[in-house]
Amino acid sequence: MTGSAALFTDRYELTMVDAALLDGTAHRESLFEAFARRLPDGRRYGIVAGTGRLLELIQRFRFDEAELEWLREHEVVRPATLDWLADYRFTGDIWGYREGEAYFPGSPLLTIQATFAEAVMLETVVLSTLNYDSSVASAAARMVSVALGRPIAEMGSRRTSERAAVAAARAAYIAGFDATSNLEAGRTWGIPTMGTAAHAFTLLHDTEEGAFRAQVEAFGPKTTLLVDTYDITKGVELAVKVAGPELGAVRIDSGDLPTVVAAVREQLDALGAVDTRITVTSDLDEFTIAGLSGAPVDAYGVGTAVVTGSGFPAAGMVFKLVARRDDTGDWVSVAKASTQKASVGGRKNAARRLDSTLTAREELVFVGDGPDGEAEYEADSRLRPLMVQLMTDGEADPAFLGKAGTEAARGHRSAVMQELPVEAFRLGRGEPVIPTTYR
Amino acid sequence: MTGSAALFTDRYELTMVDAALLDGTAHRESLFEAFARRLPDGRRYGIVAGTGRLLELIQRFRFDEAELEWLREHEVVRPATLDWLADYRFTGDIWGYREGEAYFPGSPLLTIQATFAEAVMLETVVLSTLNYDSSVASAAARMVSVALGRPIAEMGSRRTSERAAVAAARAAYIAGFDATSNLEAGRTWGIPTMGTAAHAFTLLHDTEEGAFRAQVEAFGPKTTLLVDTYDITKGVELAVKVAGPELGAVRIDSGDLPTVVAAVREQLDALGAVDTRITVTSDLDEFTIAGLSGAPVDAYGVGTAVVTGSGFPAAGMVFKLVARRDDTGDWVSVAKASTQKASVGGRKNAARRLDSTLTAREELVFVGDGPDGEAEYEADSRLRPLMVQLMTDGEADPAFLGKAGTEAARGHRSAVMQELPVEAFRLGRGEPVIPTTYR
Repeated sequence: MTGSAALFTDRYELTMVDAALLDGTAHRESLFEAFARRLPDGRRYGIVAGTGRLLELIQRFRFDEAELEWLREHEVVRPATLDWLADYRFTGDIWGYREGEAYFPGSPLLTIQATFAEAVMLETVVLSTLNYDSSVASAAARMVSVALGRPIAEMGSRRTSERAAVAAARAAYIAGFDATSNLEAGRTWGIPTMGTAAHAFTLLHDTEEGAFRAQVEAFGPKTTLLVDTYDITKGVELAVKVAGPELGAVRIDSGDLPTVVAAVREQLDALGAVDTRITVTSDLDEFTIAGLSGAPVDAYGVGTAVVTGSGFPAAGMVFKLVARRDDTGDWVSVAKASTQKASVGGRKNAARRLDSTLTAREELVFVGDGPDGEAEYEADSRLRPLMVQLMTDGEADPAFLGKAGTEAARGHRSAVMQELPVEAFRLGRGEPVIPTTYR
Repeated sequence: MTGSAALFTDRYELTMVDAALLDGTAHRESLFEAFARRLPDGRRYGIVAGTGRLLELIQRFRFDEAELEWLREHEVVRPATLDWLADYRFTGDIWGYREGEAYFPGSPLLTIQATFAEAVMLETVVLSTLNYDSSVASAAARMVSVALGRPIAEMGSRRTSERAAVAAARAAYIAGFDATSNLEAGRTWGIPTMGTAAHAFTLLHDTEEGAFRAQVEAFGPKTTLLVDTYDITKGVELAVKVAGPELGAVRIDSGDLPTVVAAVREQLDALGAVDTRITVTSDLDEFTIAGLSGAPVDAYGVGTAVVTGSGFPAAGMVFKLVARRDDTGDWVSVAKASTQKASVGGRKNAARRLDSTLTAREELVFVGDGPDGEAEYEADSRLRPLMVQLMTDGEADPAFLGKAGTEAARGHRSAVMQELPVEAFRLGRGEPVIPTTYR
């Protein structure tokens, strides 16, 4: 598997470059835009994620010798194009929504300005990162809002492919999750990691008590003991017997949770373990979390539902050429005419219109104005500009990269949640919570 | 991002090893099993995929200096455990279903025998690969069977995360897809790649004719021209005008496909382009492909639906300790008692019972017999053994690795499809096509 990102690419991107180099159009300056035609069915808002990862992938989007040799051997492009690919590095500009921003149908999430050849090469890597990560973040944000401030951890690595798992942990964290079970996500992105033991650890031991003693011996009484391998009531009793009333937490991974959690809380309190917390982790999603809001749960762990976008594993974003220069140097807006899949051509800028209570009311997309335009905002102080410059001449703004960029995205999402109308947080299906207006 | 697989791991695997090293249970020989409690709702069979990738990941599951340093810094485990991790390499045995095999609820898809510590470390990497890849392969197999022999290409890289895309292309190929758009999948796994141009290529040019001329100039008349950027009828006319009647194919990516395809076929024939093929690629899944069975389509391209498992993006497999030795060296079957998530403890072997027409009738799981047992088969010639040894003393059988392993898996799936009852291929929801019986 390559260390670069250059072959995370659909073949047609290279063949388009090949043909466009031959007729000279490859060098036409172009504007590509990533956007979603709609939100997943019934969702009220989406959360942008993947941007920080994408910028890093674009910065190391180079073809190494082995990759070029494979392309040569398989005659994917002409030899002259291989030389062009060997020198490829992205040198253009990228604007877009901040990572962690809310988005709506038509929001111009990412705009790439470069020659056609430089920009078209990035289609797959742009969409792979934004589609998957935004799908996870959009689902995760809903779970966070129904968790009502209780901590929530991502534990779904086993339900998505091994490297997607690292991206999923990051996207969920940006959306407000507090921790992940995934160690690589901890190392690469600075996300707090958590986890103590599975049922296998109890089954490994001759008795449940033996397993609890081993765990408390290794991690002290503040650890989290998994109490449902055999009988939950006996498990809780044993856990407090072994760790004492200072036991950190018990984890419950099965059963009718509202009932079980209430009983366990009562039992813990009766045993004097009043500060022992209850963590639940049994196939949770936003609906089951909401159903536990009245139960004395202290923390949630979510797996499958968050890493698979809770029913919508791809955010449905597309990447379209919206403008290009012609031979005289003038910009021409372009768009395909298909009725089913219409898109709006032209350079775009975007702002969110807020009312006097600073609540979002409208997603405004200015067509024709570039993402570097500013005049529109000064006229109306209740427009919040949405697009920032992410990359200049091929150099990413370091504020959006790495661990710091991930933390910043998480903070931005938190602030943005404050401006959404409360109807945004209803779990039921509905329309996007604010309309998108083209101007 | 690490080059090894060692941190594609949930933290609790390392903390379990930590505590088990402390009390000595880490060295108990153990048997872990991966299986699915059920198929995705309404599916009749599943297809195992990911095994070849998994074996490669296990072979390079080592902790490098930077990873160990991170674990030390974050005090994930005790220093003594870090030393153990530094020397970690898997030295155990793995049996399992061949990649490409059909599976049913309870099928013992993978069995790992090693010390507890060696085996438990692999839980996340085992499940991430099997769950995702099998999800894609299981969806892809349904699409292949309704495509009725017409070629079908995977083009969904943009709808899943960038590295999952490579795994998805491979899983779809094993399930009978013919090609992928993903270049890295071509390079790493030897899968044929395809693709010519997107709408952006047409929009880049001043006219559609200019775009078609550029493409034919670069790739000759046998190329595939995308004809629906503006008006399909004019696009088809122009395509044949530019490439001549020897035009290889036209691609249609929008519209009401059964109607449009019939009209385009008629138009192509009238223009003398009787050998020009029609490829369709518009949000297809197994249901829309089935709906096109009567239309003159020559090839399909499938994106979102296949890489997201067509509604079931994770196959739901779990990884459980099913047996371990006790202090006297005897094997003890183990299983958690939770009613909701019961699993069957013990060593297992599996065979498929075929009737006299060599049609599968029953998935037999022999509990207590190890995967290396043989006696049961000799007694009844209509039992097809399902488990093979994939890894011996930490060394993978090379027949299951790399490009050759991928081809072999594709061939095996093709053979297995012949033995499934015809009801397996009904698209409607139903029960698993054969029952699973424990003996």
